[in-house]
Amino acid sequence: MPPVTDQAAQAAHTDPDAPATLVPALTSLLDGRWAALRADLRAQMGGEPYQDPIGLTVEAHRARVLDQLQALTATDRPGLGFDKAHGGGGDIGGSVVSFEMLGFGDLSLMVKAGVQWGLFGGAVQLLGTAPHHERYLRRIKDLDLLGCFAMTEHGHGSDVQHLRTTATYDPDAGEFVVHTPDRDAMKEYIGNAARDGRMAVVFAQLVTRGDSRGVHAFMVPIRDDAGTAAAGVTIEDCGPKAGLNGVDNGRLGFDHVRIPRDALLDRFGDVAPDGTYTSPIESDARRFFTMLGTLIRGRVSVGGSAGSATKRALALAVRYGELRRQFTKPDGEEVVVLDYLGHQRKLLPALATTYALHFAQDELVAALHDTGADAPEEEQRRLESRAAGMKVANTWHATRTIQAAREACGGAGYLAENLLPGLKADTDVFTTFEGDNTVLLQLVAKGLLTDYKDSFQNLSPLATARIVAERVLGAVAERTAARKVLDRLTEGDDREALFDRDWQVKLFEDREQHVLESVADRLRKAGDNPFGVFNAAQDHVLRAGRVHTDRLVLEAFVRAIDRCPDPGAKALLERVCDLYALANIEADRAWFLEHGRLSAGRSKAVIAAVNTLCAELRPHARTLVDAFGIPRQYLAAPMLDGSAS
Amino acid sequence: MPPVTDQAAQAAHTDPDAPATLVPALTSLLDGRWAALRADLRAQMGGEPYQDPIGLTVEAHRARVLDQLQALTATDRPGLGFDKAHGGGGDIGGSVVSFEMLGFGDLSLMVKAGVQWGLFGGAVQLLGTAPHHERYLRRIKDLDLLGCFAMTEHGHGSDVQHLRTTATYDPDAGEFVVHTPDRDAMKEYIGNAARDGRMAVVFAQLVTRGDSRGVHAFMVPIRDDAGTAAAGVTIEDCGPKAGLNGVDNGRLGFDHVRIPRDALLDRFGDVAPDGTYTSPIESDARRFFTMLGTLIRGRVSVGGSAGSATKRALALAVRYGELRRQFTKPDGEEVVVLDYLGHQRKLLPALATTYALHFAQDELVAALHDTGADAPEEEQRRLESRAAGMKVANTWHATRTIQAAREACGGAGYLAENLLPGLKADTDVFTTFEGDNTVLLQLVAKGLLTDYKDSFQNLSPLATARIVAERVLGAVAERTAARKVLDRLTEGDDREALFDRDWQVKLFEDREQHVLESVADRLRKAGDNPFGVFNAAQDHVLRAGRVHTDRLVLEAFVRAIDRCPDPGAKALLERVCDLYALANIEADRAWFLEHGRLSAGRSKAVIAAVNTLCAELRPHARTLVDAFGIPRQYLAAPMLDGSAS
Repeated sequence: MPPVTDQAAQAAHTDPDAPATLVPALTSLLDGRWAALRADLRAQMGGEPYQDPIGLTVEAHRARVLDQLQALTATDRPGLGFDKAHGGGGDIGGSVVSFEMLGFGDLSLMVKAGVQWGLFGGAVQLLGTAPHHERYLRRIKDLDLLGCFAMTEHGHGSDVQHLRTTATYDPDAGEFVVHTPDRDAMKEYIGNAARDGRMAVVFAQLVTRGDSRGVHAFMVPIRDDAGTAAAGVTIEDCGPKAGLNGVDNGRLGFDHVRIPRDALLDRFGDVAPDGTYTSPIESDARRFFTMLGTLIRGRVSVGGSAGSATKRALALAVRYGELRRQFTKPDGEEVVVLDYLGHQRKLLPALATTYALHFAQDELVAALHDTGADAPEEEQRRLESRAAGMKVANTWHATRTIQAAREACGGAGYLAENLLPGLKADTDVFTTFEGDNTVLLQLVAKGLLTDYKDSFQNLSPLATARIVAERVLGAVAERTAARKVLDRLTEGDDREALFDRDWQVKLFEDREQHVLESVADRLRKAGDNPFGVFNAAQDHVLRAGRVHTDRLVLEAFVRAIDRCPDPGAKALLERVCDLYALANIEADRAWFLEHGRLSAGRSKAVIAAVNTLCAELRPHARTLVDAFGIPRQYLAAPMLDGSAS
Repeated sequence: MPPVTDQAAQAAHTDPDAPATLVPALTSLLDGRWAALRADLRAQMGGEPYQDPIGLTVEAHRARVLDQLQALTATDRPGLGFDKAHGGGGDIGGSVVSFEMLGFGDLSLMVKAGVQWGLFGGAVQLLGTAPHHERYLRRIKDLDLLGCFAMTEHGHGSDVQHLRTTATYDPDAGEFVVHTPDRDAMKEYIGNAARDGRMAVVFAQLVTRGDSRGVHAFMVPIRDDAGTAAAGVTIEDCGPKAGLNGVDNGRLGFDHVRIPRDALLDRFGDVAPDGTYTSPIESDARRFFTMLGTLIRGRVSVGGSAGSATKRALALAVRYGELRRQFTKPDGEEVVVLDYLGHQRKLLPALATTYALHFAQDELVAALHDTGADAPEEEQRRLESRAAGMKVANTWHATRTIQAAREACGGAGYLAENLLPGLKADTDVFTTFEGDNTVLLQLVAKGLLTDYKDSFQNLSPLATARIVAERVLGAVAERTAARKVLDRLTEGDDREALFDRDWQVKLFEDREQHVLESVADRLRKAGDNPFGVFNAAQDHVLRAGRVHTDRLVLEAFVRAIDRCPDPGAKALLERVCDLYALANIEADRAWFLEHGRLSAGRSKAVIAAVNTLCAELRPHARTLVDAFGIPRQYLAAPMLDGSAS
């Protein structure tokens, strides 16, 4: 690796000697298991005209997105995730990939499609039984029936177990009575509600024979064919939002609305004509979380779409960074802004992280696809946790990176015509919808801590004592900065060592293990003040969720490189992976220093290594964004006019 | 200070025992030197109806903002910054404070007012001479003449010295010929250009007798009274932007447009009828930077307005955080979200930083007000550097904090009616306009490094040797983590020590000094590759600008506390200042660890102290945001309905 100063002095532009096979080789690896589908979708999308929704009124935007949704029904895409028995493709992974590809375009369309086919259709398929499938799935797929997924309430978003809408069974009429007790219990932010939806899957506390059996899902008509609100249903419009204005979010209230008994989506719980409740799952809470667990496709799709928007922002900013010149060198030449280290630091570590997250997302999609409905509960739970962690990582990364891309394009990045404002505004809500990121991280951490507790409970007293003793030894090792596994590489600032992949992976693993152990220790002391102790440790708990996901992401990147057949692409990805790993370590180096995992000299060397990698990858930035294979018309920003593309 | 767990267990809400005098006492201290003006403006603003521009088309928003601008002319505010001789108030500080107060409302109005009176009017006043003042100032103040500040070009924003528009003197006609050589030289993002402006102050390379004398400012008519573009002037509309859509930004091109000789704003350079150029400043570059230096009011005003928008976002999010409940404690009570440590960490350190920046901004405004046009060049240069640093700190803090506030309000924060989307979208460009933050930080650092170089040059060889020797000793001290000034407090994790204000201040000072020394050392090795060496150190240079500003900010906070006459307010502010200082140290603790300024134990204690301070300040959060004195109708978000306000 050449020293930074030489490289920077060359003001390296895009490598003119890169082989023509490099971009296709990278794209092929990125495309992965659903490469054929991606190629199909790319061809479809590339053959259509495309324009971002700029300067449209809310109403015009909503109308346009509905038209686009309608146009999609002419393709196979809406049905990919549905059972073949009902005209679907039976391809869950392909369905998620298809949402991810939609994420290159107007995100309102992606979200509207997600509401209609993913959430509304998904709930019918996964929570309903054969009669529901028969009655609804084809109509949902074909847009004969537009619908809503009415879970969130004004007063309860993250804490869905405590929703307050009720569905009370009336055995005399053989009907459920759906009711909103007060304004706080109105369904809130519901997509398709303000304008287009005709039915809603309403989540409500099921009450029968005077007993509440927890939250269940019900098919409730909300409008007639002419669009008039159904009797007893109140519909409000959420009005303009920061972004995603092509989606008609609204509020729904129910005043003793009667629906037939078979409107209950009854896969996990049923009510007989006489009001007897039955369920394959005894515990109300466990049943509800099982129901929720079936609905993780939406969460996975949001993470994937966030990734697509991030890629688009980076593709725009990298291209602009290669065109835009500002300030002259002593020799009088104006410098291309991407040649500045400060500019590289804004974009290139984010680009490396985007690659890392892509490969991890890809593995998640495959796992989702391969985990059957009959998989053991523990496997389902792990998948949910992984989906939560990846949704958090993808969406916060999107918010940060699109912001950095906007700033990297200066005033041009603020003009709607240059597309970054739309990307920013649309993706912003991703961090708090489909599960608030903070709440999801807690979910990830709690899952890990439960695993931890289980492994304790399964051990004999002797084995437990041994583990405790090892931990004490570990703490000693930590204080002397000589923890065995990292020993040979902790000291000194030998730069070569930083690029040792085993060391990087071990550092990530060790961090995760230590954070988990120490947070488990803190929580074990909860005693009679569990909320206080948990709350005082909340930042620590959230950190556990984050570093766990970081480790999964790095491992996925390593596996992707391992399976790369093209030597040139492989060599390049090795450097990109170094940048991901070292930028992650750099951002967290305070922790590594505090816990004796990095010496001060080594820590400074990490900063220098990130700078070196930025300079080294600078000539490949364009190659790396081109490999995302974003159809050209999605990058049609006037600020790039004159760009060779 | 009570231990965190007890406090958290109490789930402390707003302190019911806070004395009624606390909010007024804090407001009085925050209002500072221009308290009377602020009270006047608050009363004016509080007495007017106010509504954020939600769901307006670009054209409707522009029309509304022009009306509001017109309404302002009935007040004293537009004239505050102009000389008394021309109907102004002669109150520069008051003028900046008045922009800051406008920042509580629609930021399009603040920016449009800033363009008209601050930039356009300011350029006439500061770069023109008596005839220009006589001819234009009153008309500009009264909106008889709407105008633009046409500096930025498509190809040159940050690097304004290399603008390419020309103004060539024709002695035969006694006129300048203003010309845009190509599209890259078109004036870009110019406020008031797309719709309302009639004239523009155009910055162009002055050419006379075949010599270019650098950038000067010229009064150029761009439209007639009917709004038709003047002959030879091309006007384009920049179209919709991410935000600030009430401001009509446009592009201007000039095709050999002739203007009279006296259209040159000639305070710093003049052309005689025969084409002879004269200037009180010999060097073209120095003259240009002197001209630019006079225009820092705009930069100071942007920083102040960013602060106002940040305060508004925090006031909204803190109120919502006290209303919104989610998840139950073991005893069944639903927890107010601001009682969660994770939520406090999103908002409270940002609130403390907002206080710190407010006091530093206040000092900057006073310095701007007190620095006469005849102040020594060095004093002017220091003021510019300080204005640059504060603009950077205020605007990046605004972007981060408003984002955090949006996320802290979840789905509600994404609805336009709850005001956060507008705040986010409008302030976003603040980080890259009126000087790109990265470029400005470099300016700050270069100023400091120049000081450094000067102090070297003024020393005898012996004194220089002594300094070098001290630095070597310093480096040794650093390695052993025993640097004298911090010695007694570096080791151990005694929490009390962290709250020692002297230690905090010394830590900030020492960090600044060390970063500057080490970056100076790196740059001194530039040799024959100055660009390469500078570029490789760019992150280090930017850091120098940041930590310098951090030190100024902390010192301003300390001085503000010192002058607080109210014991209760003073005691509260001591804790807020602790939180600012320790959260800053926490965020940068990797550096302190790497440089032996913090031991690992002490570093961990900093994290714990930030948590403790969050818990301790939680009951005072509402008091702290109420003290900003934001007129009630600027916080009229439906998500707060039911809030006692």
